[in-house]
Amino acid sequence: MVLAMPTLDLATDPNKVLLESHSMFAKASAETLDKILAAGRPLLAEKNKLLFLQDDPAEYFYLVVSGWVKLFRETLDGDEAVIDVVNTGHLVGASAVVDDGQHSASATVVATSNLISFPVRVLEDAMTQDPALALGMLTSIAKQRRKQSREIEGLTLQNASQRIGCFLLRLLPATAEGSHTLHLPYDKSLIAARLGMKSETFSRGLARLRKDADIGVKGASVTISDVYFLANYVCSACSNDFPCEDLR
Amino acid sequence: MVLAMPTLDLATDPNKVLLESHSMFAKASAETLDKILAAGRPLLAEKNKLLFLQDDPAEYFYLVVSGWVKLFRETLDGDEAVIDVVNTGHLVGASAVVDDGQHSASATVVATSNLISFPVRVLEDAMTQDPALALGMLTSIAKQRRKQSREIEGLTLQNASQRIGCFLLRLLPATAEGSHTLHLPYDKSLIAARLGMKSETFSRGLARLRKDADIGVKGASVTISDVYFLANYVCSACSNDFPCEDLR
Repeated sequence: MVLAMPTLDLATDPNKVLLESHSMFAKASAETLDKILAAGRPLLAEKNKLLFLQDDPAEYFYLVVSGWVKLFRETLDGDEAVIDVVNTGHLVGASAVVDDGQHSASATVVATSNLISFPVRVLEDAMTQDPALALGMLTSIAKQRRKQSREIEGLTLQNASQRIGCFLLRLLPATAEGSHTLHLPYDKSLIAARLGMKSETFSRGLARLRKDADIGVKGASVTISDVYFLANYVCSACSNDFPCEDLR
Repeated sequence: MVLAMPTLDLATDPNKVLLESHSMFAKASAETLDKILAAGRPLLAEKNKLLFLQDDPAEYFYLVVSGWVKLFRETLDGDEAVIDVVNTGHLVGASAVVDDGQHSASATVVATSNLISFPVRVLEDAMTQDPALALGMLTSIAKQRRKQSREIEGLTLQNASQRIGCFLLRLLPATAEGSHTLHLPYDKSLIAARLGMKSETFSRGLARLRKDADIGVKGASVTISDVYFLANYVCSACSNDFPCEDLR
């Protein structure tokens, strides 16, 4: 179910801060930001709500205020490759502007989410008028590309338990050391899909991680007994160190 | 061994056409192109020549006139993730401009190559002066991002023989149908690495592809008995059809 709400009130809009903090809008002019925000409509989207389909002509893009949105691509066989699962502060579908106006992946809400929808047309217009926005788009896409390179590297060289360990490390603050307890952000089957593995592989990988890197798992709660020890286990099969550069 | 050669003669330069045909420079002004070409130096680089290392401050980027260049990332354990292997018409290292001036991967020549080296500084300057070049950079990075998304999808959902079949299909002209014979562009161990698999996995995958998709292999020569049959086998585990969108 989707509830459309009235136009945002710019003067009191806390979401402006959220939009401004995105690399795409970081250097955009105040005028550009106001124009884009004025076109935004809040959207409360419930679990399983489909936002758009891969190859759809892009009409709207979304800012995630709270919740989780899954980006995925579906094969002819009906299998699903999860490209990303994003939360607060991420934009969904905005890169269609540089992808011939089409969405390059499908997007579904995986937990009740507060979104703001914006017409893609407004972003396109703004990009032609504000060079700083075009440059911001470049920064943002370049960042995604770096993240994907790291992803390809992980899929190529890390084993299942290292990939799971990497996922956990990336949930930690950059300054983390010693012991840490964290909560898995979404359910294990989605984490498995996000990491490009079957549920059984995920279970086996997690079991091995428990043994090899001293991780405790109780439901959705994970205790890392020593961040350094886990990073050593995970990052030896990666060209990055903890904390990951692309998260800095 | 690297042989530095004299400055290019713009008036008779066939490489100008090559540079212009790259999505990054497609819309750049004639002035920008001339400025960049004037700073180019031809380079004959032999096999195993290292062009730059990951995380190096970027001084030069390269246009591949002929030959093959491998982009890779190396882990602390010394394993190598091959990110891409590129040939004629590709730029290598230019995206450092949007990656904080650092190379995000290492680059090595894998077959004797004719390159042109350009100072990154010249590209940076040109980008601030020619908005069409900044937009071209955006188009180019967006294209790489789409290619990487497809790559992640393949690594996640395709089995080894489907990934090998996909690699073969992508070597064919978009109009290919019926029977086709092609030559593997570089050696099998590098193809295996490029596809993110061990050499043994590659051999097993190729054997299965022979049986399941009626492929003949003799040294570096591969005969596909029916392109449609192979595409059916490969693309059922992909969200794209043959010919691949990102190659069009």
